[in-house]
Amino acid sequence: MTASHIEPVVHGGDVDAARRRFPGAPEPWIDLSTGINPHAYPVPAVDTAMWQRLPQSGAEWALREVAAQRYGAVSAVQVIAAPGSQALIQAVPRVITTTDVAILAPTYGEHAVSWARCGHRVVEQRNLTEIGEARVVVLVNPNNPTGRTIGGRQLHHLAAELAQRDGLLVVDEAFSDFEGTDVSLVPQLPEATVVLRSFGKAYGLAGARLGFAIASDAGLCERLRAELGPWAVSAPAIAVGTAALRDSHWLSVASARLASDCARLDTLLQDAGFEVVGGTRLFRLARHERARAIADKLGRAGILVRSFPSEPEWLRFGLPGSDAQWQRLTSALE
Amino acid sequence: MTASHIEPVVHGGDVDAARRRFPGAPEPWIDLSTGINPHAYPVPAVDTAMWQRLPQSGAEWALREVAAQRYGAVSAVQVIAAPGSQALIQAVPRVITTTDVAILAPTYGEHAVSWARCGHRVVEQRNLTEIGEARVVVLVNPNNPTGRTIGGRQLHHLAAELAQRDGLLVVDEAFSDFEGTDVSLVPQLPEATVVLRSFGKAYGLAGARLGFAIASDAGLCERLRAELGPWAVSAPAIAVGTAALRDSHWLSVASARLASDCARLDTLLQDAGFEVVGGTRLFRLARHERARAIADKLGRAGILVRSFPSEPEWLRFGLPGSDAQWQRLTSALE
Repeated sequence: MTASHIEPVVHGGDVDAARRRFPGAPEPWIDLSTGINPHAYPVPAVDTAMWQRLPQSGAEWALREVAAQRYGAVSAVQVIAAPGSQALIQAVPRVITTTDVAILAPTYGEHAVSWARCGHRVVEQRNLTEIGEARVVVLVNPNNPTGRTIGGRQLHHLAAELAQRDGLLVVDEAFSDFEGTDVSLVPQLPEATVVLRSFGKAYGLAGARLGFAIASDAGLCERLRAELGPWAVSAPAIAVGTAALRDSHWLSVASARLASDCARLDTLLQDAGFEVVGGTRLFRLARHERARAIADKLGRAGILVRSFPSEPEWLRFGLPGSDAQWQRLTSALE
Repeated sequence: MTASHIEPVVHGGDVDAARRRFPGAPEPWIDLSTGINPHAYPVPAVDTAMWQRLPQSGAEWALREVAAQRYGAVSAVQVIAAPGSQALIQAVPRVITTTDVAILAPTYGEHAVSWARCGHRVVEQRNLTEIGEARVVVLVNPNNPTGRTIGGRQLHHLAAELAQRDGLLVVDEAFSDFEGTDVSLVPQLPEATVVLRSFGKAYGLAGARLGFAIASDAGLCERLRAELGPWAVSAPAIAVGTAALRDSHWLSVASARLASDCARLDTLLQDAGFEVVGGTRLFRLARHERARAIADKLGRAGILVRSFPSEPEWLRFGLPGSDAQWQRLTSALE
């Protein structure tokens, strides 16, 4: 009665594991291994009733309405709320009949694992020209970790092609929030397309577990909702997410701050001999011949960055969140 | 590319829907439609870092250790944490190869829906003697809504029988917390068995979304964890759950209070002409020839109780949580 076993993906963000690996490192650890905004949205007080009662349908609908406005969707009907975009990465493959899936690589490893676990035939391709007759195409835009961004015109063309063969385009926009308004497909959502959005990364509240799928096909939306089941998102996350997504002033201030932080980080990395090869406003991808040794050196200094087993010269750096963190990173890279 | 569609289950707990149905009802609504402890565990202050960082593996392990102690499991290795036991009701059928499933009915409707959605052949049976050669048996113990409890000896015999045919016994113990220590299978967990536990019901924190699966088979545990994926439970829920599950004093005070509340509710229902036909310490099941009319009358008074389409003479009552709620229920039933 066993299902096929697939190797788990290595993730950033696990400071506990880093602490075990570098037991002598100074505390507190600085976690630069994720692409989470270090300047978090200030968590509003959560009413005790939010913890006590089952999440209410009216509150979930209000969240979806605010999310629709924030992301530019036509209506909350197109929006599905989930406990993190990771939950959606796992749910989408379950509601699609087994088929051929092309994933634009290298990218976030959970996509390939999730499609393969459901029995789909998965190939990873470096370019969209190589996807062949795949009925499902999955891409992260802008891409994690490279930051490569594919333009809307090309994606609309691809979506139309997939629609013709009853296929699906899956666009994971987890890192799109600060990349300019024309990056997202949501405002002109094509047929046969599902867009995934992450709440926790842009708002610095990854612990809350909140993400969204946005799709124009009503049947797909219904199947995804059934797959997630009732009360998928916690009531405190609904409350906090609704407040944050409504706050456009906070978003524009955050955007400017992250732009300035990215420029500062690029300079720091270049001064340390790295070539900055890509990224988004939430992380930078940098190349160095001695990347592995530098990651270990940072680890001994209590700074966690993201390595890539298949790309030994790459390191991904999230943004430091305080003067003290900038100083420790600067010292550790000297 | 569509998957088969299955009708959604009607649930208790949706006050928003009740408000739409009875627009003239007085506020605030009293929600007696669920089996959630009305005397909630006092939510401790949640550290801002819990919202900001991805849930940490060390924190999740600590939660599982506390849960193992609380439920009497041999080790945290046997414990899987999920965003609500509902998420586990949906996950277990996905990790089992398509087979014959017998569900002891009537019971919580999501079990049958979840197994059927994954393509299993589901039959509902009234008695364990009728399960035939089913390889998976699902039962809720004590049962929702009837309160029927099956003894450990019978369940161990059933688990042994299912183990012989490479099967699985699924025991949903969502309402077992206040039913005495010998009701749960966890302390002497048989082979080929998975027990589901709900955190939100007993601790009155259903909005948090937290539940557990406990299983002795390491392969099953691993498959369930992979199915739930990384960061399934929010970090605030991990923090609150760990504090609550550790607090044995609170649990014993809650148990005594609920026993006294149940006796009071039974008297009130009997005085109103109901026959109390079952229940647990978290809800009472009552029968009345005019149950539907009484549910409507309560709805007009702003009190939501649980009806059952297939059992028109049944109503399920949760426990009022304050003197004001007891008084409104008493008046509305007169």
